[in-house]
Amino acid sequence: MDRDWVVNVLEKISGFSRGDNGITRLALSEEDLQARGYVTGLMQELGMKIRVDAIGNIIGRLAGTDPEAAPVIVGSHLDSVPEGGRYDGVLGVVGGLTAIRRIKEAGNTRRPLELIIFTAEESSRFGFATMGSKAMAGVADVRSWTKAKDPQGVSFLEALSAAGLPSDNIEAASRVGEPIHAFVELHIEQGPILEDEGLAIGVVEAIAAPTRLKIKVEGTPGHSGTTPMDCREDALVTAAQIVLAVREVALSRYSDGTVGTVGNLKVYPGVMNVIPGIAEMWVDIRGVDHESVVETLQELKDEISIIAEAEGTTVSIEVMTSDKPVRLNPMVINTVETACKDLKVSYKKMNSGAGHDTMYMASLAPAGMIFIPCANGISHNPEESASPADIMTGIDVLTRTMRALAE
Amino acid sequence: MDRDWVVNVLEKISGFSRGDNGITRLALSEEDLQARGYVTGLMQELGMKIRVDAIGNIIGRLAGTDPEAAPVIVGSHLDSVPEGGRYDGVLGVVGGLTAIRRIKEAGNTRRPLELIIFTAEESSRFGFATMGSKAMAGVADVRSWTKAKDPQGVSFLEALSAAGLPSDNIEAASRVGEPIHAFVELHIEQGPILEDEGLAIGVVEAIAAPTRLKIKVEGTPGHSGTTPMDCREDALVTAAQIVLAVREVALSRYSDGTVGTVGNLKVYPGVMNVIPGIAEMWVDIRGVDHESVVETLQELKDEISIIAEAEGTTVSIEVMTSDKPVRLNPMVINTVETACKDLKVSYKKMNSGAGHDTMYMASLAPAGMIFIPCANGISHNPEESASPADIMTGIDVLTRTMRALAE
Repeated sequence: MDRDWVVNVLEKISGFSRGDNGITRLALSEEDLQARGYVTGLMQELGMKIRVDAIGNIIGRLAGTDPEAAPVIVGSHLDSVPEGGRYDGVLGVVGGLTAIRRIKEAGNTRRPLELIIFTAEESSRFGFATMGSKAMAGVADVRSWTKAKDPQGVSFLEALSAAGLPSDNIEAASRVGEPIHAFVELHIEQGPILEDEGLAIGVVEAIAAPTRLKIKVEGTPGHSGTTPMDCREDALVTAAQIVLAVREVALSRYSDGTVGTVGNLKVYPGVMNVIPGIAEMWVDIRGVDHESVVETLQELKDEISIIAEAEGTTVSIEVMTSDKPVRLNPMVINTVETACKDLKVSYKKMNSGAGHDTMYMASLAPAGMIFIPCANGISHNPEESASPADIMTGIDVLTRTMRALAE
Repeated sequence: MDRDWVVNVLEKISGFSRGDNGITRLALSEEDLQARGYVTGLMQELGMKIRVDAIGNIIGRLAGTDPEAAPVIVGSHLDSVPEGGRYDGVLGVVGGLTAIRRIKEAGNTRRPLELIIFTAEESSRFGFATMGSKAMAGVADVRSWTKAKDPQGVSFLEALSAAGLPSDNIEAASRVGEPIHAFVELHIEQGPILEDEGLAIGVVEAIAAPTRLKIKVEGTPGHSGTTPMDCREDALVTAAQIVLAVREVALSRYSDGTVGTVGNLKVYPGVMNVIPGIAEMWVDIRGVDHESVVETLQELKDEISIIAEAEGTTVSIEVMTSDKPVRLNPMVINTVETACKDLKVSYKKMNSGAGHDTMYMASLAPAGMIFIPCANGISHNPEESASPADIMTGIDVLTRTMRALAE
């Protein structure tokens, strides 16, 4: 059994972290480079051929018996948010490595197998998420990324150079047009559903894309002591109703899986004795059903009109991003499901509320994702946790899936 | 007619200001000292004897015919908030000066007349309001005030010294125990009621005192994409309901004149993809009916318990200040009302939602306040405005009131 090996590798990677609270391994930081180096060594031990692409994605390849066959790829990331957890991303890398290790022990597959460590999946350091997989999918935002700097003023390109990586032609990381048989990613759920329902595996059918709004409410500032309650145009009172409308509209779309969150709210002038004149809100709406997201937005806009009219305030809505959700590939989904059945592992088909590298790999190849439960659904947090038993079940399903895809 | 003189003096004082937007004349700033000097000169021209007390209050006195009689005092302040208006405080000083000027022209009164320019009525510079009148009323918070510094690090005591004022024994400004016949203050309403009702004068019966709460909501942070709507403990959703509860409870107390405002709200971590874990709110509740304020608070606490219970969040309430409202003196109120009737000026008895130096002078002497309308109820703002006609009506009522009180 390779459980001890997996636990040991996970433990080793968690050692590449800065600070005492959880895991801090920002993209291309010293700690990230150490972790990348460590895993590259393990890939080489397995006899994989390593190359690093034009944005620093590490690609390990194990040849198949058919030199003409398109590869099966598994991958995830090693970088973390500040004070994050041990499993987000790392599980997919270590799980992929373990699956390839097992498959290789039983003899080579027909198709080549690849393991990819994607660069900068988390947006924490440079402000852009899934940079490595976007570049590979040919959708690098070179203009913006070239300007991107971390809070210390180090640019993304400087960080690549400092890591000894190429930085002159990010777009060359594109694999658009290259035949890829399938892509699979193993990940913790980052939500509570599997744990709540006592299931071992989530077979991901779709990945939600965020629609992000900035909402600005303009009321009339006034003295909090001298303005009668019925003469007020309080921007915060309007904003509070919008916060509740976001929840109500999303709750009414519960069966579609659409969620809505007001993540931040700011009040101006924000002092005790002045009725708020301005309130700004940042709203995140996500769903895997694009029509449901569009309808949610429309319902929300209608609700906001009614609220603003009743309150005598002015509300403006700026759509900051609005992406379409990504549906994963039925062939890959079916392969994962069959693996669960063969292994007699409980599972459900579900959606991913969070974004992943798979979103972009899905444009290059038939793609799928495998979720395992994490404690209390907590992620991006030092308390992020997954049990060794759940991890090994996930790796079992991943191994069986990859083997089936690679024949 | 002295209307031109009043308009000219108001215009002159508005020239003592920093910056281009509205009036910025912070307590004991160069501009404030210039305005104080200018008005002191006008007081001396009227033959008033000037003294400056231990906290920098400027006290001008005109002797009466009876050397034993207790004085009638009129007063207000010249300092302003940053980017405030031309009338808040200034009207009371110039109105008092004009009233004394008129009274003197008709011959001396039995009682002495005093005009006081109070130090630091606005809290903008040092964080404490009505410092001059508090010191005069014997309730100087010497310990806190000694530590008070402006944003540039200049302490209140240093500012007094730099102005050539005493700073070694603020408590000596107390006039507790000294006979004072009455105190009157003329002020803009700083609210919309008189303008809305087309009335010339507000006869103030009571001044509301603020009860200030800090409310902290603790929920559970989580990923905004992966946490289903029915598994959330969103601190901002709870806070939004509390904002609306503050309004509802205050509206239900409308007939008592009690008002409630959430002036600020902060969200943590306050990022787009995380469900708010913590929300903090600052609440201001005011009324002139102490029982109504106490009941409002109790109702609000009950509502908050229900909301927190339903949302699965934890709410803590910290009472930061809780003062009793101040009822003004029936004899002075009656004198102002009689003046309005004699002058055939429309008026109503009303309350002050804002605090004033009169709150503290009311502990030393029978006290009253006279309000005039201000445009759209706007104050503490460059748009603060009062018409010359309303100003002159206010001064007419003040003059008649002071003359009646001084005989």
